Amino acid sequence: MSAATSSIVHPSARIGADTTLGEHCVVGANVRIGDGCRIGHHVVIHADTRIDDQVRIDDHASLGKLPMKAANSATTKEQELPPLTIGTLCIVGTGVVLYRGAAIDAKVLMADLSTVRENVAIGRGTIVGRGVTVENFCTIGRFCKLESECYITAYSTLEDRVFIAPGVVTSNDNYVGRTAERFKHFKGVTVRRGGRVGAGVVTLPGVTIGEDALVAAGSVVTRDVPPRTIVRGAPARAWREVPVEQLLDSQGWVDA
Amino acid sequence: MSAATSSIVHPSARIGADTTLGEHCVVGANVRIGDGCRIGHHVVIHADTRIDDQVRIDDHASLGKLPMKAANSATTKEQELPPLTIGTLCIVGTGVVLYRGAAIDAKVLMADLSTVRENVAIGRGTIVGRGVTVENFCTIGRFCKLESECYITAYSTLEDRVFIAPGVVTSNDNYVGRTAERFKHFKGVTVRRGGRVGAGVVTLPGVTIGEDALVAAGSVVTRDVPPRTIVRGAPARAWREVPVEQLLDSQGWVDA
Amino acid sequence: MSAATSSIVHPSARIGADTTLGEHCVVGANVRIGDGCRIGHHVVIHADTRIDDQVRIDDHASLGKLPMKAANSATTKEQELPPLTIGTLCIVGTGVVLYRGAAIDAKVLMADLSTVRENVAIGRGTIVGRGVTVENFCTIGRFCKLESECYITAYSTLEDRVFIAPGVVTSNDNYVGRTAERFKHFKGVTVRRGGRVGAGVVTLPGVTIGEDALVAAGSVVTRDVPPRTIVRGAPARAWREVPVEQLLDSQGWVDA
Repeated sequence: MSAATSSIVHPSARIGADTTLGEHCVVGANVRIGDGCRIGHHVVIHADTRIDDQVRIDDHASLGKLPMKAANSATTKEQELPPLTIGTLCIVGTGVVLYRGAAIDAKVLMADLSTVRENVAIGRGTIVGRGVTVENFCTIGRFCKLESECYITAYSTLEDRVFIAPGVVTSNDNYVGRTAERFKHFKGVTVRRGGRVGAGVVTLPGVTIGEDALVAAGSVVTRDVPPRTIVRGAPARAWREVPVEQLLDSQGWVDA
Repeated sequence: MSAATSSIVHPSARIGADTTLGEHCVVGANVRIGDGCRIGHHVVIHADTRIDDQVRIDDHASLGKLPMKAANSATTKEQELPPLTIGTLCIVGTGVVLYRGAAIDAKVLMADLSTVRENVAIGRGTIVGRGVTVENFCTIGRFCKLESECYITAYSTLEDRVFIAPGVVTSNDNYVGRTAERFKHFKGVTVRRGGRVGAGVVTLPGVTIGEDALVAAGSVVTRDVPPRTIVRGAPARAWREVPVEQLLDSQGWVDA
Repeated sequence: MSAATSSIVHPSARIGADTTLGEHCVVGANVRIGDGCRIGHHVVIHADTRIDDQVRIDDHASLGKLPMKAANSATTKEQELPPLTIGTLCIVGTGVVLYRGAAIDAKVLMADLSTVRENVAIGRGTIVGRGVTVENFCTIGRFCKLESECYITAYSTLEDRVFIAPGVVTSNDNYVGRTAERFKHFKGVTVRRGGRVGAGVVTLPGVTIGEDALVAAGSVVTRDVPPRTIVRGAPARAWREVPVEQLLDSQGWVDA
């Protein structure tokens, strides 16, 4: 391990042989970092975080932070969280914030200023775009693309190969913050395998977007979207079928 | 006070007895920090900032910064600003930017990467979500929820118990950056007590959303919204009354 | 040059006589910084970056970073990038991320948490608002205003004096991430001289917004917008002409 002398590494941390650490970093107790990682300047890695081999972490990232308990928050409960884990060959951008209790599989890119909360799993090869928020209690599949500035609300599920375009906004509370009843019904968006959601789309709580379906840019999704169907408008209505050449199985993609 | 030796504290700063300061922090002249605060790594606290007791501040926050004077900006004037103040039991997330001239009351949560500009007051117990911007010359009431990524434009007023959903965009200039006339008419959104604005809503300059009114997700608000009314669509039109069980006075909430 | 002793400056870097550098900064090899700059705390300036005179750079900015190569990204190719250049009298906000391969002309304001990617040119006097993303392969003209949280997709062109309101979302891929064909057709938004786009507007791939045209807030732009025309709605349709007093040539603005 090569660490700049301005960095502060807890004696109990273990860092792999070929890993480099920039200036002014802070590495907490019991952190494990693999071989061949490239870690920028001012990176903070909180206690117990597990980072696999050949991970790139850019300046000002803060990894493994504990949730903030807001007296008024509806979904953050006190809990024992497992350490943050980051798989091999991941890339973590500048200013990224990852919470303790997130599990990031291999080859995931988390672009600058993105945030992944606790109790989230992100599958292999997925891209989490610039400024994206993945709130708590979400499951994100493999090889998804969450484009810049999209917002994934708590209690959402994205299956494999899902595409979420820039600026998409999802929601999970039909009671809009009122009644005690609402706590039983929080439900974000569910996007089935290969589903695609266009730029600036807004989805209402609990909707499911079917396998290989497509929501056109600027739509407001108020009801479930059938598989392989393009919907558009506000509220979004069926328009036509997804062209065969755009279906997932027409792409010849191989998981890697 | 317990400060890591890598932190730099101005000799004129005063920090309470049980407060801990992380690594590589910078605390400026005449800063006052109360007792029992927990301050993360790489936190910058600019001159004169006042922080009350039991405040949590996470990594990479920058507090008390001076406005940036843009030659072309319409609303930033040179001025003497009072120091930033942060009340007791507040939580300040990772990468948060707070300006000199903001006044944050007790028990406010400012989530990661949120920004509060100068000449803003935020009331007790309010949640400012992840990535939220509160521009200058805004007044935010008590126990509001400003959800992730919403944008509160300059010259806006949110009264108590207002709910702004994720991705809401507000605006304040009907002249869209043209004519000298426009400088007399900047007006953001006004949301009366208990008003609620759904996910991804866009509001035009100067609209007022009435007491306990609700704007459905994805709407575009071009006119004032009457009290206790649900509006929806683009442009938003009255749809029905807010159900009694969702009215603010039906919640049994007590200020705390 | 006055540098706090906690800052780390590469021996090959050159910093102008009246420039001040805050605490815990990192200045890389062959960096050039002019006279009279004011650089905050925890600023990282990567190798080769060129900064002209009288530039203000706020805390936690990271300048000149190398692109992150995502295995799955459609538009990031390996390449030799020229150093980041920042013109005289620019202001760089807190937490700003600027890539190697961006060219920022004089008097540009990049507000807090904004990001400018590689292969981008930004013209003199332009304001890049808080949280704004300018993706790669964009050309931004002189004296534009890109308001808070707008999103400028890759392969976009904004000519001089363009106004993009808060929360605007642009897009560039009509194939929404599918087919090999799509790589030939990426095209963002083109906004001609003086064009204006209102709050929360969504634009589809490849649309051109004509000279001095105006898109009303909340619209979805699916087709080209004629010059000096106001469009509104989803999909946006012609509504009326831009009032003469709002035309660019009626403002009496002089470039400075």
